[in-house]
Amino acid sequence: MEEYCIGVDIGGTDIKCGLFTLEGTLLSRWELPTDLSDSGSHIISDTAASIMEKLKGFHLTESDIKGVGIGVPGPVVGKDMVEVAVNLGWKEYRAAREMEQITGFWTSVANDANLAALGEMWEGSAAGCLNAAMITIGTGVGCGVVVNGKMADGFHGCAGEIGHIRLLAPEDIIGVCGCGRTGCLEQAASGNGIVKLVKREVIDRKRESSLSGLEAFSSREIFDAAKAGDPVAAECCEKLMGYIARACSVIACVLDPEVIIIGGGVSGAGDYLIDGIRERFREMAFPPLKETPIRIAALGNKAGIYGAAKMVRDM
Amino acid sequence: MEEYCIGVDIGGTDIKCGLFTLEGTLLSRWELPTDLSDSGSHIISDTAASIMEKLKGFHLTESDIKGVGIGVPGPVVGKDMVEVAVNLGWKEYRAAREMEQITGFWTSVANDANLAALGEMWEGSAAGCLNAAMITIGTGVGCGVVVNGKMADGFHGCAGEIGHIRLLAPEDIIGVCGCGRTGCLEQAASGNGIVKLVKREVIDRKRESSLSGLEAFSSREIFDAAKAGDPVAAECCEKLMGYIARACSVIACVLDPEVIIIGGGVSGAGDYLIDGIRERFREMAFPPLKETPIRIAALGNKAGIYGAAKMVRDM
Repeated sequence: MEEYCIGVDIGGTDIKCGLFTLEGTLLSRWELPTDLSDSGSHIISDTAASIMEKLKGFHLTESDIKGVGIGVPGPVVGKDMVEVAVNLGWKEYRAAREMEQITGFWTSVANDANLAALGEMWEGSAAGCLNAAMITIGTGVGCGVVVNGKMADGFHGCAGEIGHIRLLAPEDIIGVCGCGRTGCLEQAASGNGIVKLVKREVIDRKRESSLSGLEAFSSREIFDAAKAGDPVAAECCEKLMGYIARACSVIACVLDPEVIIIGGGVSGAGDYLIDGIRERFREMAFPPLKETPIRIAALGNKAGIYGAAKMVRDM
Repeated sequence: MEEYCIGVDIGGTDIKCGLFTLEGTLLSRWELPTDLSDSGSHIISDTAASIMEKLKGFHLTESDIKGVGIGVPGPVVGKDMVEVAVNLGWKEYRAAREMEQITGFWTSVANDANLAALGEMWEGSAAGCLNAAMITIGTGVGCGVVVNGKMADGFHGCAGEIGHIRLLAPEDIIGVCGCGRTGCLEQAASGNGIVKLVKREVIDRKRESSLSGLEAFSSREIFDAAKAGDPVAAECCEKLMGYIARACSVIACVLDPEVIIIGGGVSGAGDYLIDGIRERFREMAFPPLKETPIRIAALGNKAGIYGAAKMVRDM
């Protein structure tokens, strides 16, 4: 009887896997390293072998498993075709078909940011909500959108690419985005973006800051400095929070979600970040929507495997 | 046997009704005037009586009808509660329950702009698409969003309120929006908005234009003047097209729809408008999405009844 499903989250460093009941209980969680050799062509077979091994340990057979859900860092079309996943070396790769051929398990693939939103909706900060958006602030800025209880993938697999909404003020534009344009949200409001903003202040403009002496610093160190009262760091954190709040206000006007979740590495800044975003959102949002809750993600780096499992469970 | 459904589109002037087969064929279309007296409290009973009369003519009984779908100009929660519909005099009105109590037909209510998108997806310019957005440029700017084949209502019934995305350049902000803020899209990129832009040029700034002598002019006359080569009108039309293109680029980053449809009264400007929006969209959109088709709506003022019928058909 199909009582279990598998959630997989493939990243550039490791592959996270989870064995779930169809009710959402995570029974076992394990990781394996991502083998990037040969254009990432061993990734799916490594994952498949690891899953089969795990199932053997649980005395589960094919008939017990509803299927495998896989999250990947790139746009996915038709729950199978990975258009491109630069960090894995994949390009136009039918990852679901590959997994199905090896394991015999019915498989579905989707973008990792979208799956994280679905995971938070299943068992995390948006539990019970049928409409939610989750903004992931990491190296860049991504977003997953759930509408009527289902993930939005987008026609080209690009739903939630809010990091490329162009809304930076001219004075905050530093260089060109990876997409070839200027002014994209993630150029200032991401982990990389805020480092660029601070470097401009302390290196190019030689402003005094607790970060001035350092060889390099991370977004985490910037937020810590801001919390400790460093005015340059605080100013740049405020810019990040203002831009994320603006993105939230845009998402609210388009989708009116029940809740907006903030996740990703930068969300480790906690209440300082969330309170700042919420305050600015209330000031700038369309008035009927200004009380839309903005919450920190609950599942951390497990959101992806939860979402991948949920996707399979619902199909 | 349930083989038919009813679509209703309630406006401030008239109520449009349609009798459909479940396959999407419009068998009969009729209208009745909107009675705005007594805070619009006769609207549903008038509509119900008109439907029953029509069904009698077709020799149809309750068992032949799957249900009634109703579109209203305002936010709707839970397919029943109309939060507010200023033009009808309604406030916190359970319109679906009222219709059900009178007719015995299962009834569902939604926002009219959202239903127009669903209608275009069923039998119009987005036919066959599971993911589409339809921007309605009329007095204001609205938008309906369809994700995975289902309409997005939003938690407060405000999905698609893109007219209140704040993206106007400071020089194009004239006065305060109805929502109490400044810089909202619809303050420049709507029928009312473009009239304000042109009036500022020809009246306040006394610029020479073919529209200068007129007591009043409509968005239609502005587009006609632009097509005839009037530089002031053309400049303001370009602003409108640029802002709508920007809204399209935002929607593309959030939802990546298969197609974006442009409807509403201002869309009567035809290819001049659509070509202008498309050209600007291609310049400013996230590169993987810049070929997203932008098309003019096909169903005209029938989109609402098609969408209302489709909503009931799918439930």
